[in-house]
Amino acid sequence: MIDCGEGVQTQMQKMGLSMMNIGHVFISHNHGDHVFGLPGLIGTMDLLGRTSELHVHGPLQVGDFIDYLLKTFYTDIGYNVIFHPVDVHQHALVYEDRSITVHSIPLQHRLPTCGYLFREKPGLPHIRREMIDAFNIPISQINNIKAGASWTTEDGTIIPHERLTTPANPPRSYAYCSDTVYLPHLKDVLNGVTLLYHEATYMHERAPRAEQTRHSTALQAAMQARDAKVEQLCIGHFSASLKDENALLREAQSVFPNTILANEGLVVSI
Amino acid sequence: MIDCGEGVQTQMQKMGLSMMNIGHVFISHNHGDHVFGLPGLIGTMDLLGRTSELHVHGPLQVGDFIDYLLKTFYTDIGYNVIFHPVDVHQHALVYEDRSITVHSIPLQHRLPTCGYLFREKPGLPHIRREMIDAFNIPISQINNIKAGASWTTEDGTIIPHERLTTPANPPRSYAYCSDTVYLPHLKDVLNGVTLLYHEATYMHERAPRAEQTRHSTALQAAMQARDAKVEQLCIGHFSASLKDENALLREAQSVFPNTILANEGLVVSI
Repeated sequence: MIDCGEGVQTQMQKMGLSMMNIGHVFISHNHGDHVFGLPGLIGTMDLLGRTSELHVHGPLQVGDFIDYLLKTFYTDIGYNVIFHPVDVHQHALVYEDRSITVHSIPLQHRLPTCGYLFREKPGLPHIRREMIDAFNIPISQINNIKAGASWTTEDGTIIPHERLTTPANPPRSYAYCSDTVYLPHLKDVLNGVTLLYHEATYMHERAPRAEQTRHSTALQAAMQARDAKVEQLCIGHFSASLKDENALLREAQSVFPNTILANEGLVVSI
Repeated sequence: MIDCGEGVQTQMQKMGLSMMNIGHVFISHNHGDHVFGLPGLIGTMDLLGRTSELHVHGPLQVGDFIDYLLKTFYTDIGYNVIFHPVDVHQHALVYEDRSITVHSIPLQHRLPTCGYLFREKPGLPHIRREMIDAFNIPISQINNIKAGASWTTEDGTIIPHERLTTPANPPRSYAYCSDTVYLPHLKDVLNGVTLLYHEATYMHERAPRAEQTRHSTALQAAMQARDAKVEQLCIGHFSASLKDENALLREAQSVFPNTILANEGLVVSI
């Protein structure tokens, strides 16, 4: 889970998602619209009988908030909530498992803030079914071939690995940047990601207001996407003062056409 | 507003209710399901430009929570949040204005808890339109007559106040009792209220569990309603372990027929 606003429980229930599948929560910063779902989430997981650890990553202030919640509301829950402080000044590894890595992205907002970059690890190539059949390759050898081996036929002919397989799917990546002023230098960190979520609180005509409140404009989000050569951009975190969110979309698309608007319940396939 | 669970903002928006009309919030106790809407509510009221004071009443622990929120998330909001501690051991006046009084109701739960009793002040009698016409009473005298005066006709006949008016509507009252064990002695405090909300977390077959967690059963809520001779009972705060809320309703109605189930968005006219 990335950030945790008020009502996240209700929203997940509505979407048929289980809270118990959440092992790690990555929080960008300790503003209410990004953390006020945590108090209820922690309690409901306990009511549902959770025993496995819940890991929360974020700037130090988020750890203070969790400490307060645990000692005030949750002295007696049946599982551990473990906080992992993130250094908001570093682009560094925050989490890793067999299939993904998560790195922090240093952002700049009114209080310490970081984004997160999720990268799939490279997968194995796919076996070409017709080659298995053609050369009578036993099932037991398939993992070796996936891992890079060639195959030697009974008459001694070597069939190279490349002929037996098709390349692995290219690893996908997702970058989450909210909330922040526009930081052009991040184009290197964000370079080529499959999907970039970038906040776009204001239209560019309100760039001074964005600067003042440490937010970005739709145009700036799109420039970031363009300069980082990402595949797709999703913008969100729209100012409540805005009458028409589609104006933000049009502004972003004028610079980066493959842009979509974030909306409650939106599912993006990458 | 009485208690303030997570997602209250969304729920009010859905029901077309304005947060800005809330002047006073009455909190029963500092458990998450009764207070986790406060953090977001305080912030959103500020975003909406609130300048008038927000008063929150409740046990001391609620004040500590609000203090924490104000110093952690809201050092810079444009209005004051004023906390008024309620003595959970007293049945005492908590709030009063021109039209209502609010008294605390001492409850017993796992931490300091109180309910609230809202009583309309007696209204003025209604003028009988046909008497105004019959005796040519000038408009200027109507408020005097409502306040208790009689009327003297030109020939000196005194028309008594009682003939000129019909009695005021009987003052309505609402009592809120959540969360609590069953407290039979409260029947005196609750006597004759128009509507009693009483928690009914469990079926009576789980009375030991109710006692252990300091909650009530549907049967106990109904006994309270019956013994206090209230007009209507609304039960709520159902255990998540419960399969069928209508079983609670049937159990309560077996003792107090005029019982209804609380549900999200329910509006009760009294």
